[in-house]
This record gives sequence, structure tokens and C-alpha cells, in this order.
Amino acid sequence: MTHKTKVGIIGAGRIGRLHAKNLTHLIPEAGVVAVADVRREVAASCATKFGIPKAYTEHGPILGDPGIDAVLICSSTDTHVQIIEQAAEAGKHIFCEKPIALELEAIDRVLAAVGRAGVILQVGFQRRFDPNFRRVKELVSQGAIGRPHILRITSRDPEPPPLDYIKVSGGIFLDMTIHDFDMARYVMGEEVKEVYAVGSVLVDPQIGEAGDVDTAVITLRFRSGAIGVIDNSRQAVYGYDQRLEVFGEKGMIVVHNPRPDTTVISDKQGQHASPLLHFFAERYTDAYVAEIETFIKCIQGGKKPPVTGLDGKIPVVMGYAAKCSYEEHRPVRLSEIDPNLAL
Amino acid sequence: MTHKTKVGIIGAGRIGRLHAKNLTHLIPEAGVVAVADVRREVAASCATKFGIPKAYTEHGPILGDPGIDAVLICSSTDTHVQIIEQAAEAGKHIFCEKPIALELEAIDRVLAAVGRAGVILQVGFQRRFDPNFRRVKELVSQGAIGRPHILRITSRDPEPPPLDYIKVSGGIFLDMTIHDFDMARYVMGEEVKEVYAVGSVLVDPQIGEAGDVDTAVITLRFRSGAIGVIDNSRQAVYGYDQRLEVFGEKGMIVVHNPRPDTTVISDKQGQHASPLLHFFAERYTDAYVAEIETFIKCIQGGKKPPVTGLDGKIPVVMGYAAKCSYEEHRPVRLSEIDPNLAL
Amino acid sequence: MTHKTKVGIIGAGRIGRLHAKNLTHLIPEAGVVAVADVRREVAASCATKFGIPKAYTEHGPILGDPGIDAVLICSSTDTHVQIIEQAAEAGKHIFCEKPIALELEAIDRVLAAVGRAGVILQVGFQRRFDPNFRRVKELVSQGAIGRPHILRITSRDPEPPPLDYIKVSGGIFLDMTIHDFDMARYVMGEEVKEVYAVGSVLVDPQIGEAGDVDTAVITLRFRSGAIGVIDNSRQAVYGYDQRLEVFGEKGMIVVHNPRPDTTVISDKQGQHASPLLHFFAERYTDAYVAEIETFIKCIQGGKKPPVTGLDGKIPVVMGYAAKCSYEEHRPVRLSEIDPNLAL
Amino acid sequence: MTHKTKVGIIGAGRIGRLHAKNLTHLIPEAGVVAVADVRREVAASCATKFGIPKAYTEHGPILGDPGIDAVLICSSTDTHVQIIEQAAEAGKHIFCEKPIALELEAIDRVLAAVGRAGVILQVGFQRRFDPNFRRVKELVSQGAIGRPHILRITSRDPEPPPLDYIKVSGGIFLDMTIHDFDMARYVMGEEVKEVYAVGSVLVDPQIGEAGDVDTAVITLRFRSGAIGVIDNSRQAVYGYDQRLEVFGEKGMIVVHNPRPDTTVISDKQGQHASPLLHFFAERYTDAYVAEIETFIKCIQGGKKPPVTGLDGKIPVVMGYAAKCSYEEHRPVRLSEIDPNLAL
Repeated sequence: MTHKTKVGIIGAGRIGRLHAKNLTHLIPEAGVVAVADVRREVAASCATKFGIPKAYTEHGPILGDPGIDAVLICSSTDTHVQIIEQAAEAGKHIFCEKPIALELEAIDRVLAAVGRAGVILQVGFQRRFDPNFRRVKELVSQGAIGRPHILRITSRDPEPPPLDYIKVSGGIFLDMTIHDFDMARYVMGEEVKEVYAVGSVLVDPQIGEAGDVDTAVITLRFRSGAIGVIDNSRQAVYGYDQRLEVFGEKGMIVVHNPRPDTTVISDKQGQHASPLLHFFAERYTDAYVAEIETFIKCIQGGKKPPVTGLDGKIPVVMGYAAKCSYEEHRPVRLSEIDPNLAL
Repeated sequence: MTHKTKVGIIGAGRIGRLHAKNLTHLIPEAGVVAVADVRREVAASCATKFGIPKAYTEHGPILGDPGIDAVLICSSTDTHVQIIEQAAEAGKHIFCEKPIALELEAIDRVLAAVGRAGVILQVGFQRRFDPNFRRVKELVSQGAIGRPHILRITSRDPEPPPLDYIKVSGGIFLDMTIHDFDMARYVMGEEVKEVYAVGSVLVDPQIGEAGDVDTAVITLRFRSGAIGVIDNSRQAVYGYDQRLEVFGEKGMIVVHNPRPDTTVISDKQGQHASPLLHFFAERYTDAYVAEIETFIKCIQGGKKPPVTGLDGKIPVVMGYAAKCSYEEHRPVRLSEIDPNLAL
Repeated sequence: MTHKTKVGIIGAGRIGRLHAKNLTHLIPEAGVVAVADVRREVAASCATKFGIPKAYTEHGPILGDPGIDAVLICSSTDTHVQIIEQAAEAGKHIFCEKPIALELEAIDRVLAAVGRAGVILQVGFQRRFDPNFRRVKELVSQGAIGRPHILRITSRDPEPPPLDYIKVSGGIFLDMTIHDFDMARYVMGEEVKEVYAVGSVLVDPQIGEAGDVDTAVITLRFRSGAIGVIDNSRQAVYGYDQRLEVFGEKGMIVVHNPRPDTTVISDKQGQHASPLLHFFAERYTDAYVAEIETFIKCIQGGKKPPVTGLDGKIPVVMGYAAKCSYEEHRPVRLSEIDPNLAL
Repeated sequence: MTHKTKVGIIGAGRIGRLHAKNLTHLIPEAGVVAVADVRREVAASCATKFGIPKAYTEHGPILGDPGIDAVLICSSTDTHVQIIEQAAEAGKHIFCEKPIALELEAIDRVLAAVGRAGVILQVGFQRRFDPNFRRVKELVSQGAIGRPHILRITSRDPEPPPLDYIKVSGGIFLDMTIHDFDMARYVMGEEVKEVYAVGSVLVDPQIGEAGDVDTAVITLRFRSGAIGVIDNSRQAVYGYDQRLEVFGEKGMIVVHNPRPDTTVISDKQGQHASPLLHFFAERYTDAYVAEIETFIKCIQGGKKPPVTGLDGKIPVVMGYAAKCSYEEHRPVRLSEIDPNLAL
């Protein structure tokens, strides 16, 4: 039997606990042996809840523990760079929540460090592990619709995040659309060369006062000539709306929203189904399990993870290109943001 | 160019007017040249509305008019037998609304008369001409699902007919289920040998007082061993519910209800579509046109109509078998009602 | 009873015949009394088929006939301006297929002439009369989803038009997207101030050689801040794809494609429904009837038509703005094309 | 913190392992401390796989272990009676897979023993714990559709069980329809007084030779006058088909089949979705967890389980009534099978 991969979790907030729960209950190939959080009681309660032997207020002891194979970095974005660099140096495999960082130079530095250390780095774009989106990817790769012509992604949150978060998140394009940028590259299997972004403040004026928009449409020009379009809103009152459509020379594939139940009520007013699943924790339940399972399997099999460091970087470049497009009111090439991405 | 078939309509109530309208506006191969109704003003207003040259209060003049090729019998059921016999004798082709009659001996007599006269008799089972049901029939005939095993028909009206009508209609099995009996034979392409009917008064106690039931489930045993089940209600508050499903060795075909529009509204409460089409005139709009078009084409081409006199008779036999089953609380063979239908 | 409106049809091609058929069979309030087509046999066969008393090779006799109340202009686009001007001068009410013209000055001149003559001018944007799109319009107007934030229109033809047509049509934005521009204004009830268009040649290189694109995504900025996005393709192999979605503060309304039938087949491979309706004649059957019915009612009631001359002009302006955007690779304000449309 | 309920599993076949897995990974409130199976290696491998401390070839040691609170009886049906009686005597709470037994007297004896011992007995009708069916139950209870009139259940397996199983299972009505009988009572909240069953051998003649049918339609008459109808097939090639519909005075609730994914492919042939989930383990994944979770909670909270011993008995009575109806070709009252169930 394979050696059980020993994992340390850094950051025990919502997403850290989600991974702790999945690793503990659903991924027998791995075990969580330590958890760290700057808030002592958060680390302690997570450890108690999931039977994790050790709890710390700093990530140092985790990186220094020779019995630990891998770390999950679930702390706030501004801590990612330092922790990744240290973890790489300590020879730990790394799973890091998106984004790696908001500074492109820092990302490059981090990727270089990871490369030198020869450890695995997987970035937390969990949607790639959603069975529906994975199926679209496979179908497109198999040529089910021939050459893709148009990609449409609808991605709307049920409610805006706290204003404090919006102020440090980098804005809608770097915080929210980044997932859609990743999906676009993933499903189409090719790179975007230019983006054009339109944004408005329609949901909450305070979001505008914080320097962000809450409603956006982003057009993508792929290298092949295919065209993509993403629409985002911070507030869909009917629930978490995550749809995707690829249209090509031989047909179209649509991913509809999953329904929380299959019940339909008919009455004098019409036919009624339940609202959508509320948010990402409900919608991507299986995807979160699958992404960590994949990470563990890559470690155990010595394989390259399906979401690499570069996959973590390019959506950040796209986010900056979209931001620039919105601010300068013109289409922006990715190569303007990062000359390495020139054709 | 083919001779335009000259048609006389006998009975200018709701269904007579529907045919008049279709013939006038949508079937250029035929023309309505006369209309009769025992209510003088009804005949007159129908004639005016659709530009029909002649209006009568009796059907005699229509049958006596040598310029008339065919008649549509849309008068009350108790008049059908006499009019068909006279029309056959007068050499007119005959389209008759269902049922031909409620007395089996009378039906046999009428069919014999029609046979002797060599005229065409088509019975008004319009559902056979609905594009969806026709498509199922074709698919089943082509073997799309292999040998059929189970047939399910749901047939529910939006509201009960007037009590006065219920008292003379022969009851739910002869008035309402008769259409489903026809569909069962049509789609399966084989005969039923036995029926079992359960009924209840759940919608309106007055229907029970009138000697009828308003809710029923009828099980059909086909000669091949396939099993059918029909469920009926006099009152579906969400609209006219007409669905059908054939399940067989290689798969299943389902006919869903058509929707009045393709709009779906999502809000905090869920996802909402419009109620179903109200009733037969809305649901079977195209089917009513197609059945008369077919009748005219059969006349012009000298072809046997797709709904024959026997097709008009057997559902009446099935209706009596169901009624007997309900009353005697046991399965009833069709051959008990009409020995000619023995295997 | 109201006087039956006497109509002359100018241009007896596909769309002219469609209107002739609808007027003859389905709109009893009007009658077609003359038809003109530069191709003698086309005019003659149309007259014969629909029982139209007079057929001409020129539109002059129709405009000169004092018994004619209104004309339907279904001839090629380059003839519209002259005929409208003459028809207005002759006091005829005018229904004109889109676009009024490809030259904005000519459109302005024509609208002025119509205004002076006091006749009704309705432009042929039939989608406004589609029951589904009309329902969305009503729901949005009633505030069903509150303030609209995002509009998405998918509009894909089943196959490209002939290359010869593409060369004179003005290109995809003026020929195809023009309908979507009209829908955008209609559903949102407000004006677009800026467009951004991306286009590619992915379907057929000959379309590119003819100077056009076959795949396009157009972003719309509305005055309110709402954002619209249209995606177009000249070739959807699965049929005519016409969908629309309005997302707003209180919910979302989606118009799905209607299905040619309601049958679903389940087998080992999955669940299968029929392809979409083929093209506009099948999809907008009811809409074509309703638009002419409305035109006739506006004449008879002395009402302003729901699609005015200005409604005919603005989508042309939008088409030029999109073309300019595509060519100059930048967002373009409508006021750059027509200063009268400045905010 | 509540005492962790200690569970012993008797029978480590497919369903025993499923419960072992769910208890181990998903139900932290309980722990599996022993497993027994007459096949030594089956017990051992189950223990190894799920980290169960003890494995036996007999159930005796489990019943004799004072540290064990509850047993899950997942052994073959013919062993249920003896084990339940012994477990009750040993003061263990009991979860027993359906059916309790095939002999009604034995069931009565067992229920009496359980009653005397004061232990909890829950029977394994997992469908009651499916979120969709539970939602229907709640909606019906809340009066969402008023008084129910018609219940329709479709329940079709993807493939027949082995012939050897069919020979000892008691036949389709006691083995397969038993689940639907339970659903009927559960959703309607009232008892059936009479059943009528029609059956055929259409899937596999060997099933007929084994004395059973493979296709059946069962009509249910409820005490209130409501009517139910169940259709069963041993072989739906398109997957596990489990639908339910309740129709009532104010509307209808339909439970559709869940889909394995939300992807739809459109091409020249039409629109295509994936086949249904294969069978019960895939379809009722969540239900199996919820039923055991509920059992554990009832033990810990000293509550009556939602599926009682009587709930385990009545569907067996219904199965015998259906079998008798099929064999004697007549409607059969439940009171004919068990006089205690007379009205």
C-alpha cells in the first residue's frame, strides 16, 4: 500500500476547513497532521473538529516538520508568496489557493523557486474539477463540436463579498473573473491574446466608492480567432449562476446550472422549480474533493499537476489586462501586461 | 388543378366553427359551401363569419345538394347515426366527430351502411394528427425502442364539462377516456384484450350524483402482453395535461406537454415557467387542421382514411368495458362487450 | 364593420409571398389587391397563388391606384428609399422590410418625407412580435426583474447566405446583427451609447474574402450603465439559435429556443430531442402574422406603429458603429456615427 | 459531547459495505466496531478496508458484545427473523434491510419481540431519505397541492437480478415493488385498501420460467378514494428510472430523474443529454447516508425511527396482495392478506 501523504494546512478559515474536512473524511490516501492559523482558537477548534494532532499559530513548525509531505496554503493572499517560497525551500509539495499573488514579479519569483526546489505546485482553480466542466473539456478535446468558434461563460455570485474584502481583493477582474479566465483557457485549450472589459456599478454604490465595479462583461480574443465572452455580476438573487457554452463548427455544448432537487410543482400560476444552489461550497462540493485528491495523487505518482504554476499566473495577467481595458476604455493585449505572453 | 372539394358542415357549435375556420383559411383544397344548425341564428352567424354561401336549420338540404362532396358531422352525438346513414345513402363522404354513437348495434349498422355506399368515413380522433403523437407513432413503428412493454397516458382536462353534458355523455370512460383508448391503439399498433378501471369522485360531488366519476385510472392488457395505463382527471388546475410515454426493450419515448412560451423567470423563489395551454382548442390547433386536410386528401386521392369506422367503434367498446369493469369491480375483456373482438 | 384595408405588395420574393399568404389566409381585416415584381412571372405566379386581382412589373401602378390604402415594400434594399418617398407622396401607408436603407442621409430624408405626408411607416423587425420576446418585454416593463443589469442575445443562423448577398448586404453587423440591435433597444427600453465589436472568419474563408466576418461578439453599453452582449454566427449546424436573457436586480428572464416537437427519446446513449427549427420562416411564423396584423390595425385605428421610422434608423446607426469598431479595433459611440444620437 | 454509538454490521456484502463506508467516513456520531459475515474472507476484507477492529464469521459475538449499541442486519433475507429476535433480546437497536421477512407471521412475531425489548427497529427503505422524495412528502403534507387525487410511480431497474436471486426473492412484487409500495404510503400519508396487479414476461423468458414476471403495472386504491399506479420493469436500457408524480386538487408535483451531469450537446441530429444514473448505489448515495444518520440520531435522542416495524410489514402485505391479484386475476384487498389491516 502507498505511503499515506501527510498534509499540513496553513490557514483554517472557511476554505481551509473545507479541505480539512474533505481530507479527513473522503481522501483515505492522505492524512492531515497539522494545522496553523494566526488566530489561536481557530487553529485549535479546527484541530479538535477534524482530529488533527497538532495546531500552531504560525506556519513555521509545519514547514519544519520532516514528517510532513505537503502543505495547503489557505491563508490570506498577501501571505502566499512568502509561504510558498519557504515551503519550496523546505521541500514540501504545495497546494495554494488562488491567486498565487497579486504582483506579477512575485509570481515569477515564486514559480522560479518552486522550479528550483522540484516540488509540486498546484493552484486552487477548483472549477476544473467540476464533473460538468471537465466533461465539456473532454468533449471539446475529442472534437465533439469541431473547432470552437464562440465561448460564453456566465458567472454570477449570489451576493457581494464584504466591502473590506473588495478593497484588498484587486477588484472584480482579479478576484472573481479570474476563475472564468481560467475556465476559458481550460475549456478552449488555447491562449487568449486580447481582452476588452466593460464594467458598471449597478448592484451597490459602495462597491463603486471602493473603486470597483459589480457588473462586467469581458470579451476575449483567442489566438485561433475564436471569441469568448464572460459576464459577471456580484449579485444574482436567484442563486449562484455558473453556466458555460462552447459553440463550434459541428455543434454546441452547454453546461446548465445543476438543480438542488428535481422537483417541479405545477399550479394555476405555472410550473415552478427550486432556486439554484446558493454558492460555491454547495455548487463545487465534489470539485473541492477532486482537486485535493488529484493533488495527493500527483504527489504519490510523481506527476505534474493539472493546474500548474503558469496556470496560476496567466489568469492574473488576464485580470490586469481586463482592469487596464476597463480603465483605459480600449482593448488590451496580454503582452502589454507581460511581454512573455507575446505571440 | 384538382377539383376543390365542396363541404357542408352539419352542426355549427364550437367544433363545427373550428372546422369552418380551418377549411376557410387554411385548407385551399376545399371550400365550405353550406352550414346547418338547428339553431337558425347559429347557422346564420357561422355562414356570415366564414363567408359560407348557404345556411340551413336542417341537414336535409345539404345531403340533397348534388354539388356537395362531403359532410362534417359536428352535431350532438344522438343525431350521428341518422345523419351518417342518410349521408352515406346520398353518396357523401363523411367526417364525423367522436363518438359515432353510444349504441354498439347502431355503430355496426352505420358502418355497414357506409361500407355499402362506398363512401369515406373518417372519425374525429384529432390527437392522431398532433405532430408529437404522430412522431411517437412513427418512431415506435420504425422500431426505435424495439418491442413496446409499457404505455402510459396522462390525460387531464382543465375543468369539468357542464353537469348536463355529463349526464348524457355516457360517462368519463365513453366521453373522455375514449380519446386515450384511441391513442393507445394508435401508438401501440395492436389491440387491447382486457381493461381494468378504477374510479373516484374527488373533484366535484355533483359529478358523483350524476352517476359518473371524475378521476380514473385504467389498466390495459394488450394482446402481445404489453401493459398500458391511462390516468384521467376532469380538473387539472394547471391546464390541459396531455402526456404519453412508451417504454420498450431498447428505450423510451416521452411526449411532454408543449409550453405556451419558452420564457423562464428566475427569482428568489425559484424558476418559473408559464402554465400549460388551456384546453384542446389551444393544444390541438394544428391537429384539427391536419385531420381535415387528411380527410380532404383521402377524398381527392380515393384513399382509405387513417381513422376508419372500426377505429371509431373499438374505443366505444373499450369505454363500455371500462365502465363495466368499474361497476363490477373486476377486469373485463373486450370480447365480453363485443364477441367480434375475441382473439 | 370596418373597411377592409386594401394592400399592394411590392416585391414578390420569399418574404413578399410570406406576407401575401398571411394577409390572404389569416388577416381577414385586409385584402391584397395588387402585387408588383420586376420579374413578370414572379408577380404573376404570386397573384395566381393567392388570388390577387392585379399583377405588375413596376410599383408605379400600385402607388397610383386610389383604391389602395397601404403598401408592403419587400423589394431589394437599394429600392426602398425611392419607393418609400413615392409611396409617402401618394399618401399610402408603408410597411418596409429592414433595413430602410444603408445610407443614413437617405434614411433621414425618407423619415422626413413620411413625416410630412402623415402616413404610417412600420419597419419589418418581426422579432418584436414573437410571443416569447414580447413577453420578456412586458415582464421587464412591469419590473418583474427590477432594473436590468445585463442583456445577452444569442443569434445564429443555420447557414450563411449566398456570397453575392453578403457582398451587397452591408456586412454581418448591418444585415444580421441589426435584428439583435433592435431587440436590445426593444427589450431594454433604452438607448445604447457605445458598442464594441469583435469579429472572425471561422465558418467560410470566402466570407472573409468578400470583406465580411462570419462570427462576431458585440458589447453594448446602455445609457443607464446596463451592459449588453450579442453573439452571432452565420452557421449553427443544429438549427436557428435565437435566445435572449435579461438579468436584473430582482432576477432573470430567459427566452429559450422553441422546440419543433416535445418528444424525448431515451436509449443507452442518453436522452435525445429534435434539432431546432430550421430558420426564420419556421421560427417566426406567428411573428410575421402579428406584425402585419398590427400594421393593419394601426392604419385602421389611426395609431402610431410599434416599430417607427426611428426604430428603423437607430439599428442601422448601431450597425455602422459596430462595423467601425471592428475595423478600428476600439469602442465606438453611436454619436460618432450620428451626432443626433448624442446624449 | 454525545457518546459515539458503537455499531456492529452483520452481513458484509454490497449493502453492508456501503453502510460501513458511510458510517466510517461520513457519520462521525457513530463508529463501526465489528463486522460479521459467514464468508470469513469477506468479513476480514471489509474490516481491513474500513478499519473495523473485529471481524467474525457469526453474528453471535456481536450480539454478545456489551460495548455494541446497535446492529445493522445486511445478511440474506432468510436470516433476518432469527437475528432480529436475538438482537432484540440482547438489547441492541436494530437497523434491518428490507424485507424484514417473507412470512407475515414471522414479521408479527419479530415486531412483538422488538416491542417487548423496547429497542429501536428501523427498516431499510432508503428512498424515504432521498432529498427529492422527502421534498415531495413535505410539500404534500403542507397542502401544496391540496388533497391528492392520483399518484404515479415509475420504478424501473437497469437490468434484472441473477435468476438465482429471482427464485428466492419472493418475486417482483415482494422484491422490487415493495419499495414503491413504501413510497406510496409515505408520500400519500394514508393506507392502501386494495391493489390490482397486471404482469407480463417481456424482458427475459427465463424470468417467466422461474415463476416470476419482469414487467408489471399495479393499481392502488387508497382509503380516501385517491388512486395510485405503479409501473415496474426489470430492464430499462437507459438507466435506473425512478420518477414520482402526485396530482391533486390544487396542482401537481413531479419528481424527475436526476441527471449525472448538466451538459447538453446540440448537433445536426438534435439535442443530447447523458443517460440516467446506473442504479440504486448511484441514485440513492445521499439517501443511504441519511437513513443511517437518522437511525443513529434516533438511538441517541431516544426517538421513534421514521420507518417503523409496521412500515416494514405493510409493504410485504401489499406485495402478497399484488401477487395474489396477479395470480387470481382480480383486485385484492389488503385485509384478505392480513385481517388486521381491515378498515
